[in-house]
Amino acid sequence: MSPFRKLVPFADKAKAAGKRVYHLNIGQPDIETPAYALEKIRATDIKVLEYSPAAGQASYRQKLTNYYQKFDIDVSAEEIIVTTGASEAIQFAFLACLDHEDEVIVPEPFYANYNGFAQIADVRIRPITCYIESGFRLPDTAAFERMVNAATKGIFITNPNNPTGCFYSRESLEGLAELCRKYNLFLFVDEVYREFCYDGNEFFSALNIQGAEEHVVVLDSISKRYSACGARIGALVTRNKQVLDAVTRYAKLRLSPPGLGQILAEATLDMEESYINEAREEYSHRRDVVYERLRSMEGVVSYRPGGAFYCFAKFPIDNAERFCRWMLEDFDLDGATVMLSPGEGFYATPGLGVDEVRIAYVLNTEVLHAAMDCLEAGLKAYPGRLDKVEPASLKAQAR
Amino acid sequence: MSPFRKLVPFADKAKAAGKRVYHLNIGQPDIETPAYALEKIRATDIKVLEYSPAAGQASYRQKLTNYYQKFDIDVSAEEIIVTTGASEAIQFAFLACLDHEDEVIVPEPFYANYNGFAQIADVRIRPITCYIESGFRLPDTAAFERMVNAATKGIFITNPNNPTGCFYSRESLEGLAELCRKYNLFLFVDEVYREFCYDGNEFFSALNIQGAEEHVVVLDSISKRYSACGARIGALVTRNKQVLDAVTRYAKLRLSPPGLGQILAEATLDMEESYINEAREEYSHRRDVVYERLRSMEGVVSYRPGGAFYCFAKFPIDNAERFCRWMLEDFDLDGATVMLSPGEGFYATPGLGVDEVRIAYVLNTEVLHAAMDCLEAGLKAYPGRLDKVEPASLKAQAR
Repeated sequence: MSPFRKLVPFADKAKAAGKRVYHLNIGQPDIETPAYALEKIRATDIKVLEYSPAAGQASYRQKLTNYYQKFDIDVSAEEIIVTTGASEAIQFAFLACLDHEDEVIVPEPFYANYNGFAQIADVRIRPITCYIESGFRLPDTAAFERMVNAATKGIFITNPNNPTGCFYSRESLEGLAELCRKYNLFLFVDEVYREFCYDGNEFFSALNIQGAEEHVVVLDSISKRYSACGARIGALVTRNKQVLDAVTRYAKLRLSPPGLGQILAEATLDMEESYINEAREEYSHRRDVVYERLRSMEGVVSYRPGGAFYCFAKFPIDNAERFCRWMLEDFDLDGATVMLSPGEGFYATPGLGVDEVRIAYVLNTEVLHAAMDCLEAGLKAYPGRLDKVEPASLKAQAR
Repeated sequence: MSPFRKLVPFADKAKAAGKRVYHLNIGQPDIETPAYALEKIRATDIKVLEYSPAAGQASYRQKLTNYYQKFDIDVSAEEIIVTTGASEAIQFAFLACLDHEDEVIVPEPFYANYNGFAQIADVRIRPITCYIESGFRLPDTAAFERMVNAATKGIFITNPNNPTGCFYSRESLEGLAELCRKYNLFLFVDEVYREFCYDGNEFFSALNIQGAEEHVVVLDSISKRYSACGARIGALVTRNKQVLDAVTRYAKLRLSPPGLGQILAEATLDMEESYINEAREEYSHRRDVVYERLRSMEGVVSYRPGGAFYCFAKFPIDNAERFCRWMLEDFDLDGATVMLSPGEGFYATPGLGVDEVRIAYVLNTEVLHAAMDCLEAGLKAYPGRLDKVEPASLKAQAR
């Protein structure tokens, strides 16, 4: 059971006892799904809710090509397979591209569910560690190259990153692509947070790396972009024909992606740019609130994340899982507390992230301030508080 | 590529050339999705389309317990996991219950996609052959018992059956359950056609077999029941706690089943019984049309299926795949033709089903008669017609 799952009963108990729990532990945004798209659902005149084509409705795939053009991504409808959320896209990518016991290099901390999809496909994840002191920037290409062995078949990154919020530059992507060409690896990029890049960071899709067309497989989803997690609509995008053929087989096996979700997804593409711009602005404000508040807390190590709606923080505590549980069981500030995700579950290397947490800034700034008040007071009162924090990079060197 | 997939381009070409193609090759019913349920979709006042709980909305799971009561199935909401169609329920069952290289006995012909789900879970399907001459009734329990070896971990049946339409009696189910108890096997039963049993056949769920509670895993879906294939809402139902725990992990991995589809699914349960009764009546009429028309065609072997909306037929031809292709490419009756599924793809044993087809009676009786006119004329005109049909059981004995 993941550290996060273990906390759920304590959160339930806290709420049952009347405590207010601010959920900064999950990636479920509070931002409204575009009203215009929901209106399309209300206006549906379907008589028979049929299977859609296995690869998705032709009209939706066609409109997605326009959406990708916004990022100068030039793909055809045939190069897009509509999936049941990014979850299924990740699963299809592993099943279609990798064989039993193949290895994939993944920068850690990473989205913990990659482990489960790898397990189903019988694929091994080899973590390459990133450090909070550098804002979790990617190790240089040479460090990746040292990880490559005969079993290595791919590199898997999330850009912007969940759980760290790190934004990867065009240069670092091109470096990885060069490596993928050299060793004939796949470059899997989960780009579901593409729209949420801050401080003028310009998103650069792996699909736009020249000469890497046969290597790049992008996983996508409308869940975060349009705050439509429940629609379960994602996509796998690649120009590699063999991969498209293999993925299409898996798509046919499960018959079709959700029909009503696809209506909603298609409708989102008719919207004005303002929805996304406002959402980005809002997340950027929240990011500032979280960053500034963490920065002012004594002994806390954090950084200014460049994208997505997550950040990591290292606390001056003995153990983050114990701290998160204590916050739910034994602490409150005026009847409220905050729930965070212990960092350990996002690392594959044992012992890392023990004093770190992931914070998802999915609540509005006012609520976020209240949650940060709880966190600040909790950190001061926590019995397991340490005097100072030990840098992870030093700890790693000592191992 | 399955024989069916190979035919798709020929059907497309026929249609492009202006030919009308009656599709009796797929299980996509023409019956309307309940208007009342679609109305609930139109009335939705969702603001944020959030993830639902991984195991499904609590209210929907609760209402499903009432639905199952209709068949005297007494299960709690906790024993039902909502899935993305029966497809995902099958996948979860294989992943959660079976290890690499475990074997599952499956009566053939069977729903061809079971092969793909088994491949993902690295599970072996061991076919036990049923014969058209007996209406594909299940082999006796002793024949199943002879198939059991050290690797056998389950028996997987579909009741009523796709692709044969065969209805399995309480006695044959109890016989299989006895075997499962004796050898500690799972009894997986795909019951998605539960509502469609004809001639007064009373459906008996495997969940009601006394003493087999720990062995039975039922796969379900609203796709056929409410003609809502595109909703992608199914369920896995079992009383085995260990299986529920393992399936819940896979459910959490993919986060949640489709949200809009669950609203529709829940709404279907508020309806009057009349919808299902009318659908059953309609399918029963269609079954009669197909059966009577096949019976009157010279050299054709078929039977009166007891459930679902499929039947198999054996034709006096050299090869069903060739015949199906010829029907699309070279034949028409007043500008129309019919598309069927070659039988071979539903068998795991090589060489079986070569002169058989599956017919899905998913069109109304008038259109069905027109399709049968095409089939009858096509069978007479087909250059590969043989004088008489060779019984599969004799052929099997000769092998």
